[in-house]
Amino acid sequence: MAAISETKTGVQQDFDTSAVRELDSAHFIHPFTDHAALAVKGARVMVRGEGIYLWDSDDNKILDGMSGLWCVNVGYGRTSISQAVYRQMETLPFYNSFFNTTNVPAVQLATLLASIAPPQFKHVFFTSSGSEANDTNVRMVRRYWDLMGYKDRHTIIGRYNGYHGSTVAGAALGGMAGMHAQGGMIPGVAHIGQPNYAESGRGMTEAEFGIVAAGWLEEKILDLGPEKVAAFIGEPVQGAGGVIIPPATYWPEIQRICDKYDILLIADEVITGFGRLGTMFGSELMQIKPDLITFAKGVTSGYVPLGGVLVGSRMASVLIEKGGDFNHGFTYSGHPVACAAALENLRIIQDEQLVTAVAVDTGPYLRQKFATLADHPLVSHPDACGFVAGLNLVRKKAEVVHDCEPFDSADGVGMICRGHMFSNGIIMRAVGDRMIIAPPLVMTQAQIDEMVGRIRDALDATLADLRQRGLFR
Amino acid sequence: MAAISETKTGVQQDFDTSAVRELDSAHFIHPFTDHAALAVKGARVMVRGEGIYLWDSDDNKILDGMSGLWCVNVGYGRTSISQAVYRQMETLPFYNSFFNTTNVPAVQLATLLASIAPPQFKHVFFTSSGSEANDTNVRMVRRYWDLMGYKDRHTIIGRYNGYHGSTVAGAALGGMAGMHAQGGMIPGVAHIGQPNYAESGRGMTEAEFGIVAAGWLEEKILDLGPEKVAAFIGEPVQGAGGVIIPPATYWPEIQRICDKYDILLIADEVITGFGRLGTMFGSELMQIKPDLITFAKGVTSGYVPLGGVLVGSRMASVLIEKGGDFNHGFTYSGHPVACAAALENLRIIQDEQLVTAVAVDTGPYLRQKFATLADHPLVSHPDACGFVAGLNLVRKKAEVVHDCEPFDSADGVGMICRGHMFSNGIIMRAVGDRMIIAPPLVMTQAQIDEMVGRIRDALDATLADLRQRGLFR
Repeated sequence: MAAISETKTGVQQDFDTSAVRELDSAHFIHPFTDHAALAVKGARVMVRGEGIYLWDSDDNKILDGMSGLWCVNVGYGRTSISQAVYRQMETLPFYNSFFNTTNVPAVQLATLLASIAPPQFKHVFFTSSGSEANDTNVRMVRRYWDLMGYKDRHTIIGRYNGYHGSTVAGAALGGMAGMHAQGGMIPGVAHIGQPNYAESGRGMTEAEFGIVAAGWLEEKILDLGPEKVAAFIGEPVQGAGGVIIPPATYWPEIQRICDKYDILLIADEVITGFGRLGTMFGSELMQIKPDLITFAKGVTSGYVPLGGVLVGSRMASVLIEKGGDFNHGFTYSGHPVACAAALENLRIIQDEQLVTAVAVDTGPYLRQKFATLADHPLVSHPDACGFVAGLNLVRKKAEVVHDCEPFDSADGVGMICRGHMFSNGIIMRAVGDRMIIAPPLVMTQAQIDEMVGRIRDALDATLADLRQRGLFR
Repeated sequence: MAAISETKTGVQQDFDTSAVRELDSAHFIHPFTDHAALAVKGARVMVRGEGIYLWDSDDNKILDGMSGLWCVNVGYGRTSISQAVYRQMETLPFYNSFFNTTNVPAVQLATLLASIAPPQFKHVFFTSSGSEANDTNVRMVRRYWDLMGYKDRHTIIGRYNGYHGSTVAGAALGGMAGMHAQGGMIPGVAHIGQPNYAESGRGMTEAEFGIVAAGWLEEKILDLGPEKVAAFIGEPVQGAGGVIIPPATYWPEIQRICDKYDILLIADEVITGFGRLGTMFGSELMQIKPDLITFAKGVTSGYVPLGGVLVGSRMASVLIEKGGDFNHGFTYSGHPVACAAALENLRIIQDEQLVTAVAVDTGPYLRQKFATLADHPLVSHPDACGFVAGLNLVRKKAEVVHDCEPFDSADGVGMICRGHMFSNGIIMRAVGDRMIIAPPLVMTQAQIDEMVGRIRDALDATLADLRQRGLFR
């Protein structure tokens, strides 16, 4: 158990991996998991992280191309965050913010977020996750329109293949059919198509398609009746849907349509917030001015659960001046320890100028290096935006993305490839046959070289495997 | 700023309380708060906790009769929890549990919970809050019945004045009209009356009323049609509703009715879990055998956000064997740092035998001492169960609770009393004119004496105030 004995501080007691796997299977219901299948396979036990690397219980060193789950923006092993958390915990490990009470880290974090967010944002509502934050958005936009006297304006429009968390209402806002079918739906939610050029842009330029895809929003608004529509919600770049980078024309046109019909705009920045796209918030890159921004993940780099909603002045003034009590909130809204972790995490992001690095240095470098994978026999149309990137695994390549020949989805080529990625010491996520990354923002150019090298090795291994299985050529 | 300089470890930088209040008002949207009113008043700034005491930024020492918000079971300043968190954070601050991956603290905690929970519970689903956990229950019970082939069994029955969190679905399960009116409702939820003897038991013994109140469930099931009912959800003792302690006859009769109609039983133990009622789970005290137990708060004593659902074997076997992928989960499901905090917190609860203390020592002592407040001119019918207790403020007392004369609710006597409690260095929560406590489980007999003494002083101050306002006698 070398990985365990290497542990820096000894928190992991000695354990037997197979025993952990058995207990895992006996007691721990994982998120989004087929447990009958997991029980057969046995879980991979992650035991340590440092920088951009993870170690599992078999002492495999793995480069984390997904930042935990789009969250560990500053990398693992940041002692200053651990220390900030320890100090806060020793001082005031918890107090609630109900009943006219507050705490210093929550106030400091709200103040800091107001200073780094786009200028329309001066108010923050805290939760413990992006799911709770998007769920909050549902109640907040409906409350806003109620207070404005438009009690019919309750429908929120999301997008197919969007992801907005896993509460009943969050799943409803998202566009994942598998979640809708398992209880994730509420009334007053509608969906439009996603701005996925590869899927729906045949015969158009990307710029043309961006306008067309945004136009689906106007069609849906007119179909529902503008007097019934409360808000539109979207991720600046769709994450869980497979790093769907919209054409540059898309978001400005969405903004124009929201303005035209006086529809609130919600940017779900759980993934794109705090530098991932090379701007502090993705809304800045997309040149939109949302009324609400959902945040989570990168706000603490995942070290402590924290999420929330940035509330724009248009809504905040109405909620505060006309609202009286807003009957909503969580025990851990403004948790002092979570806020202390966020304050130190954001200090790192600012002091190490990670957002600028992604914008002008490592981001462009990642894009350029990732693009070199286009010459691989399996790879079609790699693309990147800041520190998210994706590529398609295809049976037959073509110049135009729409002419590529996909694998049979039943063959599970993405999952096969994902296995080879792990075996080659790199975590890359498979969304169908699209392979995606969202590495820690601290990644250097040399580490990008290493990452892309490992990806290429894993693609080669995948290719050999697919040939052996008779799935390629 | 004496309170600040006293700080043990210096995490709180020097600050000016009035500046903090201004920033708080400018940027921080609090849970369940009227911000126009708060801006006028200014928030109380909590800066430090130690044991059962808190200090605010004006150096007031306050005995925390509410355990933060029903959560700090082991008290503030538990260095061993801070250390466990620090060590885990330095080792592996985060990794997800999707994609067949696990981590040691999550597995250890799931295993520990399975060992201390009632015997039917061997599986745990983790969230970051009680809200997310109850929201999960909605999806999980509907998924269960879908898999069992009863796709019409989707309605969940809760109770008026119950509290099950603040997501859209959680608020719907709860019975708070103010939350329902502000977007907290979904289809397929119904409510019955609460087992509140003071409210509805006139002319009956408590035992008789318990059977009558449980009978409302049977009436509702028959009204909806048993083939449509998925589950019943309730708190063993209602918390946010005002510490409503049900008659002893209530829960066994609820169990009988659930069994009769094959309805799943969900015990929301966010407040009653981990020793609060003198049993590890309130279900044990109430002698019920739920299919799901919601937990949060006391699992970490609030030091790090964590919640979850204990899944009984009846449901777990179906979800696992028949379910395939359950399309639900959260980034922070099984968060290693949150789980490490929980493991150390539960070790403290077990090693210090806090549950036994509440059962046989400090719990009975609290009940006895709290009962002595019955002689106060304002107080009617104080009652307690383990480490929750409540009393009613009334204009005119009577032997029978139903004959007491209440204050006019518009006079806000509970809130007036709550202010005097704070001024007398004791935190007691007002639910209307009912004053409630839920102190840390570490409270000693001497501290109970101190607490009850402060409560009495504050009641005297309240009495004088009410007389001056012309509201009493």
